[in-house]
Amino acid sequence: MPLLTAEEQQTIADLVALRAVGYSLPGAFYTNDAVYRAEIARIWQRDWLFVGHTCEIPSPGDYLTFAVEADSLIIIRGDDGQINALWNVCRHRGTQICDQAQGRVGRLVCPYHQWTYGRDGSLLSCRGMQEDVDEGELGLLRAPVREVEGFIYISLCDDPPDFTGAAETIGPLARPQGFDRAKVAKIVDYEVAANWKIVWENNRECYHCNVNHPQYIKANFDHFNADDTSERIQARIDQAVARSEEKWAAAGLAVSHRRSGMTEFPCIGPEGWYAANRTPLVEGYVSETMEGRQAAPLMGDYTDADVGTLRIRTLPNMWHHASCDHAVTTRLLPGGRQRTLVRVTWLVDEKAVEGRDYRLEEIMPFWQLTSEQDWQLCEQAHKGVSSSHYVPGPYSAYKEYNVDAFVRWCLYRLNSGEQGAESRE
Amino acid sequence: MPLLTAEEQQTIADLVALRAVGYSLPGAFYTNDAVYRAEIARIWQRDWLFVGHTCEIPSPGDYLTFAVEADSLIIIRGDDGQINALWNVCRHRGTQICDQAQGRVGRLVCPYHQWTYGRDGSLLSCRGMQEDVDEGELGLLRAPVREVEGFIYISLCDDPPDFTGAAETIGPLARPQGFDRAKVAKIVDYEVAANWKIVWENNRECYHCNVNHPQYIKANFDHFNADDTSERIQARIDQAVARSEEKWAAAGLAVSHRRSGMTEFPCIGPEGWYAANRTPLVEGYVSETMEGRQAAPLMGDYTDADVGTLRIRTLPNMWHHASCDHAVTTRLLPGGRQRTLVRVTWLVDEKAVEGRDYRLEEIMPFWQLTSEQDWQLCEQAHKGVSSSHYVPGPYSAYKEYNVDAFVRWCLYRLNSGEQGAESRE
Amino acid sequence: MPLLTAEEQQTIADLVALRAVGYSLPGAFYTNDAVYRAEIARIWQRDWLFVGHTCEIPSPGDYLTFAVEADSLIIIRGDDGQINALWNVCRHRGTQICDQAQGRVGRLVCPYHQWTYGRDGSLLSCRGMQEDVDEGELGLLRAPVREVEGFIYISLCDDPPDFTGAAETIGPLARPQGFDRAKVAKIVDYEVAANWKIVWENNRECYHCNVNHPQYIKANFDHFNADDTSERIQARIDQAVARSEEKWAAAGLAVSHRRSGMTEFPCIGPEGWYAANRTPLVEGYVSETMEGRQAAPLMGDYTDADVGTLRIRTLPNMWHHASCDHAVTTRLLPGGRQRTLVRVTWLVDEKAVEGRDYRLEEIMPFWQLTSEQDWQLCEQAHKGVSSSHYVPGPYSAYKEYNVDAFVRWCLYRLNSGEQGAESRE
Repeated sequence: MPLLTAEEQQTIADLVALRAVGYSLPGAFYTNDAVYRAEIARIWQRDWLFVGHTCEIPSPGDYLTFAVEADSLIIIRGDDGQINALWNVCRHRGTQICDQAQGRVGRLVCPYHQWTYGRDGSLLSCRGMQEDVDEGELGLLRAPVREVEGFIYISLCDDPPDFTGAAETIGPLARPQGFDRAKVAKIVDYEVAANWKIVWENNRECYHCNVNHPQYIKANFDHFNADDTSERIQARIDQAVARSEEKWAAAGLAVSHRRSGMTEFPCIGPEGWYAANRTPLVEGYVSETMEGRQAAPLMGDYTDADVGTLRIRTLPNMWHHASCDHAVTTRLLPGGRQRTLVRVTWLVDEKAVEGRDYRLEEIMPFWQLTSEQDWQLCEQAHKGVSSSHYVPGPYSAYKEYNVDAFVRWCLYRLNSGEQGAESRE
Repeated sequence: MPLLTAEEQQTIADLVALRAVGYSLPGAFYTNDAVYRAEIARIWQRDWLFVGHTCEIPSPGDYLTFAVEADSLIIIRGDDGQINALWNVCRHRGTQICDQAQGRVGRLVCPYHQWTYGRDGSLLSCRGMQEDVDEGELGLLRAPVREVEGFIYISLCDDPPDFTGAAETIGPLARPQGFDRAKVAKIVDYEVAANWKIVWENNRECYHCNVNHPQYIKANFDHFNADDTSERIQARIDQAVARSEEKWAAAGLAVSHRRSGMTEFPCIGPEGWYAANRTPLVEGYVSETMEGRQAAPLMGDYTDADVGTLRIRTLPNMWHHASCDHAVTTRLLPGGRQRTLVRVTWLVDEKAVEGRDYRLEEIMPFWQLTSEQDWQLCEQAHKGVSSSHYVPGPYSAYKEYNVDAFVRWCLYRLNSGEQGAESRE
Repeated sequence: MPLLTAEEQQTIADLVALRAVGYSLPGAFYTNDAVYRAEIARIWQRDWLFVGHTCEIPSPGDYLTFAVEADSLIIIRGDDGQINALWNVCRHRGTQICDQAQGRVGRLVCPYHQWTYGRDGSLLSCRGMQEDVDEGELGLLRAPVREVEGFIYISLCDDPPDFTGAAETIGPLARPQGFDRAKVAKIVDYEVAANWKIVWENNRECYHCNVNHPQYIKANFDHFNADDTSERIQARIDQAVARSEEKWAAAGLAVSHRRSGMTEFPCIGPEGWYAANRTPLVEGYVSETMEGRQAAPLMGDYTDADVGTLRIRTLPNMWHHASCDHAVTTRLLPGGRQRTLVRVTWLVDEKAVEGRDYRLEEIMPFWQLTSEQDWQLCEQAHKGVSSSHYVPGPYSAYKEYNVDAFVRWCLYRLNSGEQGAESRE
């Protein structure tokens, strides 16, 4: 049966047409159930989704499970060291095979009737079945999976978009951070009572930073914009860039964002969903910690703490800030029209020992505070846009160009639905 | 998109036609989602809704928030002493501005990007926006608001019904109670697992009082009706009326209900949604307290405790009983097909001091018991009408004429939908 | 209004046509709301449903309440000793009369306005109503009810299927167990996060038993099937059957299942919904207890512990295993697409005294473990079939013929909908 009725298709097309350029989205984009299902079908079930880091599954048999609504995958390292993304659905009667968030297994055994699969998903045994069952046809279904410098992506779509551009953009910038030699220091999961787009809109501007994120604005320049970048501030930015470029050129790093305001992201078009850049911190800050001090051993190839921050973002579900000594990944998953599941992961060098080389209370607060301040704003934003008397308001041309860009990206993707691909049994 | 599909419109019209005069409503009126949405659109989003008492926001900057489903308003006293009803939705990106139930503010500042509004909703500052933004157009949206003798009403509809008749009916009767010199002694909030109409149907008859409200029937005559009003009882009523009229005439008060049974309410038609009357209590009772004794200082202009009870009711969401010494307001809000949010507020004279002049355990139990007994009955009634084998039954002609009147009022209002007014983006 | 739109009817017909013989059901059968509503209308609101045991309401006035979704019934023993099934809905304004799970009453009095009904549902009093109310027409609505050897069945349908065949099949086999002289030793209620059909599918095969139910397979032969029944095992079964037949013939009992594997159930057709049989236990086991020992006094007519197990099952909501000394009934009720309410009831002889004649920790664990192991499997199965990438898989011809039979029965019933019977007001 179709995921969206003809009437719902029309509703969405009407809504997309209704949106005025430079203004926030009409309320139905956040509250209408058909819009949400269209987003699941046309964005979340088509795009590349960030899952986690390769350092979470270092050895053959290590696995993570990953779920978007009712769709669960097993992300498991195979005997050949490659990562497999397997649908977490037994080929016998459909039972979910792994119900743990992570673990290590020799083989994947369905708890129901013990159908047994290899780490690559191939069916090894289905004792009790008749002889004419074709075991070769009954391996676990595979999902597309890609790895780029320790970031694992999967797609729920059997025919996903090209990943090449993303790999070529993220790879070189991420390589010096040494994500292949990292480890997880801490994972915190949040349930935010707001639509997933509201969480992204929050991420795509620093207009709200000055009052809401006092710790963030001490370390970063990106809350300044065209309207409030004085000559004095631009001089500070230029100085930080010059200082960084000198050092980083020697270290093979590159500064890729050197203006006030945020780097532009996302863009319309097939390559508009990813971006990465290296950005200097404010003079005196070498890490996104509360006081700006290094709080853990240098990661990767770094030989000097002054490497600014590496920033990566991929739609629809990941952004990342890495300092010289730790890295922070934020992963989003939709949990209904008015609920977003957020996981924030802190990484450090794999050899660093908690208590000896770093303390969680030094590496966590900067992004934990920033995150939690944002979730509260998102929840209050969601409440407001649900009102019958919410009317779209104007974006700041100085500070919200990226929110506008994100909204345009969403509308572009919502319009890209092909009816055929959206039917489920 | 339309709130109700053509099919749903027809369903409602069919249901309205189905109801037999003198019989309770078909079950779908309580369980069908389209009916509920029609009630929200045609009743709750069109009518005057009681919010609270002016004594809850005595000074400029004092505010209450008030919400019907996702629609939140800020009810705030302005610098000019007038009460403003402002939609609780920032004109920038729609964030809910106030998330507290009440408070006092100098200006209304959106927590997200600090857009700042005056107590009258006008936009005072939107720092960070481009110069061509028209601040004069971006004040908080205003909702219609009326005050009558301390009772605050708003409408979620920009073009609400006339309020004049209600003000002229309620005003003179309420004035001696001195609601402008009252204070809140206690607020209790309830969540009742029943449709809002079931709560009103319960309120509109005293057929259930004899067994369920032993305290209520000791103080009041209105549980007697045509079928059980003996000569002896009518003589008691006549005596109470005569006694009251003599005193009250001298005090400028008026008896407006002097029969057994409840006063008739509501009526079909544009003025049928409000009523007020003064009614004698049973001999020996001067207040709706457990023993009938005065339990707090006299309120308002009263110089004698024997003033009977002042009763006010306005559809769809308020009824009120005031005695000489305290007053009790019950406010309903819909919380889904099978949930009603009820707030009961006890008022006393503003100079009365708790512990010295009154004790909550003396002024509260009479209506707290009555309320809680009723909520339990409502919940059990809701369960029953949800059954596939519930069939509408006959109303008592003696005791449930007001339930029948309420049901007729609802059907009249459900039929008054104009499709144009019901579309939301 | 119709329970299912024309579009939904078509969806269901398409789904039924989609199912491949010998393969598990397409996922929509477990997750689609229209399918669930069709099952309620065409199965649960038409068939005979097991309620409980007569020993739970031994005396006039004893009652149980029983609910399928919003439909509640009072199952009450009348003054004539007969069991009445009365809709738990007052004929006045529809209030639910009994809100307790069980109890004893002289008369059924609606708490709202005290309309009073006899134990047979006839209206005895409706004080306060006008004289022309026809009390004879206002008795509680009656539902069909049947009793067979202590098992109580009702139907939510006023014109239910014939019960004769079920009574004739179950009666003679159940009689020696003495359910009319039993008592409830324990009731445990479960809420299982799985569709009700998944719970039945689990019950209809023992393919999952070997690993998941170590205690069960020690006592029973039915986990063996065509593919793994060796000569040695068949010899053990034959020996057990021979031993039993000799004894049971003398006792008037009959062995009705003497092969490996499960007895075949259900079947398509009007008589396919019930079955009963007596089956030998493994040598050394005389009761389904952990060690196989008798753990309570012999029930009913039994004079020897070696009576195997009596097994009864009726679709859509009951299965039963009785040993010589205790009996265990499992009752299902649907609680939404992904929720099943399960009640497991342990019965012993009415004269047995807990602590003296039996201990719960001896009679309960065998079926409590089996049940709880199964609920966990069912929940994991439900998660998997909800995935967009679940595809129906092949049933084992040796071990899952009854799952296939159950699925065929469901499709047969889903196809039997007559539109006329499904409209509700």
